[in-house]
Amino acid sequence: MSASSEKPVKKVVLAYSGGLDTSIILKWLQTEYNAEVVTFTADLGQGGEIEPARAKALAAGVKPENIFIEDVREEFVKDYVFPMFRANTVYEGQYLLGTSIARPLIAKRQIEIARQVGADAVSHGATGKGNDQVRFELGYYGLEPDINVIAPWREWDFKSREALLDFAEKHQIQIAKDKRGDAPFSVDANLLHSSSEGKVLEDPAVEAPEFVYQRTISPEAAPDTPTVFTMDFERGDPVAINGVAMSPATILTKLNELGHDNGVGRLDLVENRFVGMKSRGVYETPGGTILLAAHRGIESITLDRGAMHLKDELMPKYASLVYNGFWFSPERNMLQAAIDYSQDKVTGRVTIKLYKGNVTITGRESPYSLYDQDLVTFEEGKVAYDHRDAAGFIKLNALRLRVAAKRDQRSK
Amino acid sequence: MSASSEKPVKKVVLAYSGGLDTSIILKWLQTEYNAEVVTFTADLGQGGEIEPARAKALAAGVKPENIFIEDVREEFVKDYVFPMFRANTVYEGQYLLGTSIARPLIAKRQIEIARQVGADAVSHGATGKGNDQVRFELGYYGLEPDINVIAPWREWDFKSREALLDFAEKHQIQIAKDKRGDAPFSVDANLLHSSSEGKVLEDPAVEAPEFVYQRTISPEAAPDTPTVFTMDFERGDPVAINGVAMSPATILTKLNELGHDNGVGRLDLVENRFVGMKSRGVYETPGGTILLAAHRGIESITLDRGAMHLKDELMPKYASLVYNGFWFSPERNMLQAAIDYSQDKVTGRVTIKLYKGNVTITGRESPYSLYDQDLVTFEEGKVAYDHRDAAGFIKLNALRLRVAAKRDQRSK
Amino acid sequence: MSASSEKPVKKVVLAYSGGLDTSIILKWLQTEYNAEVVTFTADLGQGGEIEPARAKALAAGVKPENIFIEDVREEFVKDYVFPMFRANTVYEGQYLLGTSIARPLIAKRQIEIARQVGADAVSHGATGKGNDQVRFELGYYGLEPDINVIAPWREWDFKSREALLDFAEKHQIQIAKDKRGDAPFSVDANLLHSSSEGKVLEDPAVEAPEFVYQRTISPEAAPDTPTVFTMDFERGDPVAINGVAMSPATILTKLNELGHDNGVGRLDLVENRFVGMKSRGVYETPGGTILLAAHRGIESITLDRGAMHLKDELMPKYASLVYNGFWFSPERNMLQAAIDYSQDKVTGRVTIKLYKGNVTITGRESPYSLYDQDLVTFEEGKVAYDHRDAAGFIKLNALRLRVAAKRDQRSK
Amino acid sequence: MSASSEKPVKKVVLAYSGGLDTSIILKWLQTEYNAEVVTFTADLGQGGEIEPARAKALAAGVKPENIFIEDVREEFVKDYVFPMFRANTVYEGQYLLGTSIARPLIAKRQIEIARQVGADAVSHGATGKGNDQVRFELGYYGLEPDINVIAPWREWDFKSREALLDFAEKHQIQIAKDKRGDAPFSVDANLLHSSSEGKVLEDPAVEAPEFVYQRTISPEAAPDTPTVFTMDFERGDPVAINGVAMSPATILTKLNELGHDNGVGRLDLVENRFVGMKSRGVYETPGGTILLAAHRGIESITLDRGAMHLKDELMPKYASLVYNGFWFSPERNMLQAAIDYSQDKVTGRVTIKLYKGNVTITGRESPYSLYDQDLVTFEEGKVAYDHRDAAGFIKLNALRLRVAAKRDQRSK
Repeated sequence: MSASSEKPVKKVVLAYSGGLDTSIILKWLQTEYNAEVVTFTADLGQGGEIEPARAKALAAGVKPENIFIEDVREEFVKDYVFPMFRANTVYEGQYLLGTSIARPLIAKRQIEIARQVGADAVSHGATGKGNDQVRFELGYYGLEPDINVIAPWREWDFKSREALLDFAEKHQIQIAKDKRGDAPFSVDANLLHSSSEGKVLEDPAVEAPEFVYQRTISPEAAPDTPTVFTMDFERGDPVAINGVAMSPATILTKLNELGHDNGVGRLDLVENRFVGMKSRGVYETPGGTILLAAHRGIESITLDRGAMHLKDELMPKYASLVYNGFWFSPERNMLQAAIDYSQDKVTGRVTIKLYKGNVTITGRESPYSLYDQDLVTFEEGKVAYDHRDAAGFIKLNALRLRVAAKRDQRSK
Repeated sequence: MSASSEKPVKKVVLAYSGGLDTSIILKWLQTEYNAEVVTFTADLGQGGEIEPARAKALAAGVKPENIFIEDVREEFVKDYVFPMFRANTVYEGQYLLGTSIARPLIAKRQIEIARQVGADAVSHGATGKGNDQVRFELGYYGLEPDINVIAPWREWDFKSREALLDFAEKHQIQIAKDKRGDAPFSVDANLLHSSSEGKVLEDPAVEAPEFVYQRTISPEAAPDTPTVFTMDFERGDPVAINGVAMSPATILTKLNELGHDNGVGRLDLVENRFVGMKSRGVYETPGGTILLAAHRGIESITLDRGAMHLKDELMPKYASLVYNGFWFSPERNMLQAAIDYSQDKVTGRVTIKLYKGNVTITGRESPYSLYDQDLVTFEEGKVAYDHRDAAGFIKLNALRLRVAAKRDQRSK
Repeated sequence: MSASSEKPVKKVVLAYSGGLDTSIILKWLQTEYNAEVVTFTADLGQGGEIEPARAKALAAGVKPENIFIEDVREEFVKDYVFPMFRANTVYEGQYLLGTSIARPLIAKRQIEIARQVGADAVSHGATGKGNDQVRFELGYYGLEPDINVIAPWREWDFKSREALLDFAEKHQIQIAKDKRGDAPFSVDANLLHSSSEGKVLEDPAVEAPEFVYQRTISPEAAPDTPTVFTMDFERGDPVAINGVAMSPATILTKLNELGHDNGVGRLDLVENRFVGMKSRGVYETPGGTILLAAHRGIESITLDRGAMHLKDELMPKYASLVYNGFWFSPERNMLQAAIDYSQDKVTGRVTIKLYKGNVTITGRESPYSLYDQDLVTFEEGKVAYDHRDAAGFIKLNALRLRVAAKRDQRSK
Repeated sequence: MSASSEKPVKKVVLAYSGGLDTSIILKWLQTEYNAEVVTFTADLGQGGEIEPARAKALAAGVKPENIFIEDVREEFVKDYVFPMFRANTVYEGQYLLGTSIARPLIAKRQIEIARQVGADAVSHGATGKGNDQVRFELGYYGLEPDINVIAPWREWDFKSREALLDFAEKHQIQIAKDKRGDAPFSVDANLLHSSSEGKVLEDPAVEAPEFVYQRTISPEAAPDTPTVFTMDFERGDPVAINGVAMSPATILTKLNELGHDNGVGRLDLVENRFVGMKSRGVYETPGGTILLAAHRGIESITLDRGAMHLKDELMPKYASLVYNGFWFSPERNMLQAAIDYSQDKVTGRVTIKLYKGNVTITGRESPYSLYDQDLVTFEEGKVAYDHRDAAGFIKLNALRLRVAAKRDQRSK
C-alpha cells in the first residue's frame, strides 16, 4: 500500500456511482481496510437514475445513515460551470473541460460529508494514469489537509480485469452482462459533457467511430433547417432562453437538447495530461459549445477592450489550473476575482443560429452596449472622433520604432 | 494638412488598387501636393485582375517606369500568413486577422520601391477611423523612419461623397455606375480572407444579409456529403494536400476552394479596434479556418505540452501585435523566434473532414509523434509509467495547498 | 488651438501648485479662453506649504469660492500608494512609479470639483512630451467622458521661456529670482517620491550630480551604524512601525525619514516613456523602497507559491498600466481585484535593517505563516513529507521530457 | 528501494565532490548496487581544489579511467550563467538562481560521460526534500530518457547521521573532525554564488548570523570609499572590465572580487521550493548582483520598449523554469530564443559604483543607443516630435474609456 494510506483508517467516504468499479472498491475498502464505508452518489446530470445506488450500497452492507444520494446539478452549473465559462475557458485551444470541472464539487461534498459523519478518509475510483485522481485529491487536500486519501486503483494488486471480476463475484457483486468483457471505450459524463476515451479511440490516426457519440447526433443527421433562438445574460451568466427565465441547470439542460438535436459540440482531440502523457479523447459538449459562443457574443458588445484582452491573456493559465485540478487554489481564486470583476455589465441578449454542427451568433444587443454606431460610421460625425487624432496616435505609437530604425540604419 | 505632410514632397509611392478611391487619391496627390506619383499595385489574391491598373495609372499621367504591378501571393502566404498560423493566431477569440496580415507586406514593398525610385513619401487609401492606417504607417515608419506619410482620408477637405465624385469627374476619373451611390458595405480581400463592414452591417443586433458573403457559400447551400482530404505539414507549415506537394499560395488557394464549397469560414463579430471603438465585421476565411484546425491537429501529437501551453499563453499578445500593426516590431520578432523554435518537429499528416461549415480533424499521424499508446493504455505496461509515481506527484503538488489549508483552519 | 479645446469653455478647474508655471497658465486661461478659473491645490506631501497658493489665486482674480486647497495625503497613501505596493509594483525592473501614482488622484479631485462647481473644463500644467499629460487626461476622460481638457503646453504659442516670462510680467505674476534663468533640472514630488529630470541629467553617460538629490542623503553621508526597526502589516498594508500603529500617511512619512537618514531609495535610470522616447530620471523613494522590501518580506512567509508567482507574472502589466495612466481602467481594476484577493493573510511583522543605502529584511513572523520548520528540516519528520513522494513527483514531471527525448533520438 | 532503481545497474556515473556525503554514496553504490562507479568531479568555481577527489576516488576503488575531473567554469558561465542573465532572471523578486543554474551542466556532463563509458545509471547527492534532486533528474531524463537514476538520499535506510557515519567508518571513509557533529548549516557554492541553509537559519524571524557569510564581507566592514569601474557588453553579455577584455569565467571571478570587497550581493530570504514547502536561505551572489544591475543599465539605452516589456513579462516564467529544473525543456528554449533575439544591439559600456553593499549605475553609453537627447529635451526641437501629436495619442487611447464611462453614467 502506498504512503498515503499506510495509516489504518476507520471510516471512509467513497465517491460511489453504483457501477461495477466503485462497487468493487466499496467492497475492497470494507475487506482490505476493514473500514466503515460511507457512500456519496451525486446526480451531476450524467444521465440515468442515481437512486438505485442506495439499494446496491445497502446490499453491500453500508448503513442507511451512511448513504448520501444528492442532486447537485444546480450547484454544479451555478458555482462551477458558469464561473468557468465567464472566463471563456478552453484548454489547449479546444477542450471545454467538462470532466475537469465536475471533480472539485464531488471532492468538496465528500469532505463535507466526512466532517459530518466523522470519517477520517476519502476514496475515489479514478485510475492511476489519468488526471482525475489529481483533481480529486488536490480537492481533498486543499479543503482538509490531514484527510487520508485512498486511491484503490493505485494500491490494489489485481493484475488483470479477470482478477477484478473474480473479486467481484466472490463478494456477490452483480456484474451486468455487457461488463463481462472489456468495454470498447470508457466514459465520463455530467450535465456539461460526456467524454469517451480508450480502446477504439487509442489510435489518433483513425477516425472515432460513430457509436462513440452519446450526447449528440451527427451534423449529417441533424435537421436541414436551422434552429434560431435567443439567450439572455446577466453579469456574465445565462438567465433565459427565448425570454423564458430558467435556473442554471435548466438552461444548460435546454442548451444540451438544442445542441444535441443540431449536431453541435463534438470534439475529437489529442490532449496533454497533467500526469505527463498525451491521450486521445472524444468530447461532446453540446450546451457548453453554444454557451461559449453566446458568452463571447454578449461580451463582444459589453466588455471593454482592455478587460477583454486581459481576460484572453489570463485564460490559458486559468484553463490549465482547472484542467490540472487546482480549482481550490489561491491562484484560481485570484483569477476568478479578476474575471468576475469584468462581468458586471455583461448583460444583454444574443441571437443564436444552430445548423448541423454550426453555432452562429447572428445578433447581440444590450442596455450596456459599448458599440457606438456614430463612432464607427465612415462619415466623421458629431461625435468624439477627430480624424486628425489618428495622426498623432500613429506618430507616437511609431516613435520608438522610428528611433530604433534610425539606430539600425546607422549601425549597419 | 497634418503635421506629417506639411513638408513639400516630390515623389510619392501610392498603394494603388486601380479602383475609384485610390484613383482619386492619385489625382489628389498630383494636384494638391504637385508630386510625382509612383503606383504600387499588388496581387495579394484579392480576386480580379491587377493589370488594368496600368492603363488607369497611365491615363492619370503616371510615367510607365513609375508603375509597379506585382504578384506577391507567394511571398504573402510564405512570409506572413504561415508564420502567423504557426502561432495559432486568433484575435479576441475569433478573428483570423486576414486584413491585418496583408498590410505589412504592402508597406514593405512601398518602402522598397520608394528607395528604388528615390521617392520621399508614401501614401495609402485607408480611412481615418480604421486600423489599416495604423498598420500601413507603423510599417512605413518602422522600416524607413524619416519617410513622409500622406494619409489623404485624414487630410483632404471633401465634406461628402458628392464632393469626392465631383473631384473625380472634374479630373476625368471614370466612375463605374454602381459606384455612384454609396456601397451597401465596404470590402477588403486577399488570399487569406475577405472582410465586409459598414452600412448594412452596422447594427450588431441584425443578422448579416446573405449577399454580404463572397468567399463562401452558406453551410445550408453546401453539399450533403462531406469532403475528406489530408494535409501534410513540415515544420509547422502545410506543404501538401492529399499527398500532392504545392507552393504556399497554391495550398491556400486550394484550401479556399475546399472551404468555399463546404460553407466553411464565415464569421460575424463585433471587434475592438486599436483606434478605440468597437466595429462589426463579417469575415470569410475559408482556407485559414481549415489551416488553423489542421495545424492544431498536427501540433496535438508533435508538440510538447510545455511548448504548447507557452504558445497558448503568448498567442493573445502576438495576435494584438499583428492586429495593431506591429508586425515589424522587436517584440513580434521575439515572439516569432519563440514560436518558430517550437515548430521544428511539427511535421506529419492530418485528415480533415469538411461538411456544411464544420471542419473536423479525424486523424493525425507523424514520424515525430509524441503520442505513446503504451503510456496511455489503461493497463500498466512495460513502459515508463508506475502508478505509484502518481501518488508522490499528487502529494507534492498538494503540499502547499495543505500547508495553506492548515493555516486557514488554524486562523479561523 | 487643438481639437480638444476648440469649443468655448466657461469654467475650468486647474491643477494649481501656486508656482510660476501654473500661475502663468491660470492667467492664460483667463485671458485666452476668457474662462472663469477654479484652482485646485493639493497637499500630496510634496513638501512646502500649500496655503500660499490661496493668496496668489486671489491676486490673480480667482473668486474665493473657486479656490480649493486640500490635504489629500491620507487618501493618496491609502487608496493609491498602498494598493500599488500590494502588487510589488516596479516599472522596467526599477522604478517605483512615484510620479505616476499621484496623477489619478489629482485628476479625480479635479473632476469632482468640476461637477460641484459646474465647470465644463479641466486643465493641467504637464508638458507635451511627458507621461503626465497622458495620466491626467486619461483620468479626466475615464471619469467624465465629455469634459473639455485644456493642455496649455500643447496649445499656446510661446516660442521661448523668455516669451513666457514676458507674459508673466505683463500680467503682474511674481517671478522668483531663481526662476529667471532656466532651472538646472525639473522636479516632481509627493509623499512617495521626488523625481528630477532634464538639463544636467540629460546625458545618461554622466553621473547625476549630488545637488540633484533632495529626499535622501547619500549612502556615504549616512551614519556608520545601522538602524533596525519593525513594521507590522495587515492584509498587505503596513499599519505600525516599532509596534506603534500609525495612519497610512504617517507611516509613509516616518519611512521617508528613516530612508532619508540612511541614504535609502536613490535611483538613477533611463526609462521608456509611454509617448515613445527614452528619458533619464533620478528618483528618490526612501519610504517606498523600504516598503517594497518589507512587503516582499511579509509575503515571503504568508503568501502561497501559486499566488506569489501569479502576482509576479501580472506585475509588469500592472506597472505599465499605472505608468501609462490607466489607473481608472477596467483592466487595472481587474488586476487589483486579483491582487487584493491574495493579500487576505499577508499580516505579520518584519524586521528591517537600514544601513548606508541598504535595506535588509532580517526577520519575518506571522500568525498566518506558511513556513513550516518541520517540513523543511533535513530529517524526515513526523510531518506530511515522504521522501519517496519526490521520486514520483520527479518521474511524472519528467515524463513528457522523456517522451520528447526518445522522439528526438529516434528522429535524429 | 524506489521504483526508479529497482532494476539492477552495472555502471553508474556519480556527481562526486570528494566530500564526506558523496564519498559515502560512492561506497554505498558499490556495496548496495554492486555497481562499477564512475566519478565526475567538476570545478564550477565552488572554491577549493578538485584534484584531491582523484586520490579519494582511487582509494575507494574507482578505476583510474573512471575518474573524471574537469574545470567547467568557462562553459558554466558562457552557456548557463550569461544566457540566464540576458533575461534579467530573478526568482520571486529576489533570488538570482545561483544553485539552480549549475545543476543542468552537471547533469549534462554526467549523461555525456555515461554515454562515453557505457554506464547505465547516474547518481547524485541531493536530498529528498530539496529542489536539486528535481533539477538533476529532470536534466538526466530530458537528455537520456531511459537512464537509470539513483537518488541515495531517497533510497537508503540510514535512520540518523550516526548511522551514516558508522557506515563511513566501517568502509574506511575519512571523516574530517568538523564533520563529526552536525554542521550548523549546509552550503552550496559555485562561481555564481554560495547558498547557506538549514539549522541556524531555520527560524526566519531570527537574523542570519554573520558567520554564515562566506563570499562577501559585510557592508559595514567594506571600505569607506566607493569603487568605480566600467563594464563593456556585447550582444547582452559582459566582455570587458575597465576596458580589459576577459573570458566569461574571468569576468565573473573579477566581479565576485569586486562585490566581495564592497559587501555586495547578500540576500536573506524565504523562498518557495518546487517540491512544495517554504525554506529560508542565505545567498551571496556578489558578481551576479553587479551583473544584473549592469545588464539592466546597458539595456536601458539599447533595448526598445516593446522588447523590454515583453522580456519583463516573460521573465517570471523563465525564472520558474530554471528554478524548477526545466533548463533542458522546449519552453525554456523557446523563451531563450525570444530573449536572445532581443540582445542583438545590447552592446556598450556601463559605469558602476560599488559602495558598502550598494550597486549604482552612474553612466551608460552605446554606439547603438536609442536614447535621443533631442527628443527628450523640453524644447520642441527640429526632431520628429510634434506636441500636437500627443493630443491625438491621448484622445484615441482615451476613446474606449470614454465610451465605457458614458455607458456607466447612462446605466447608473
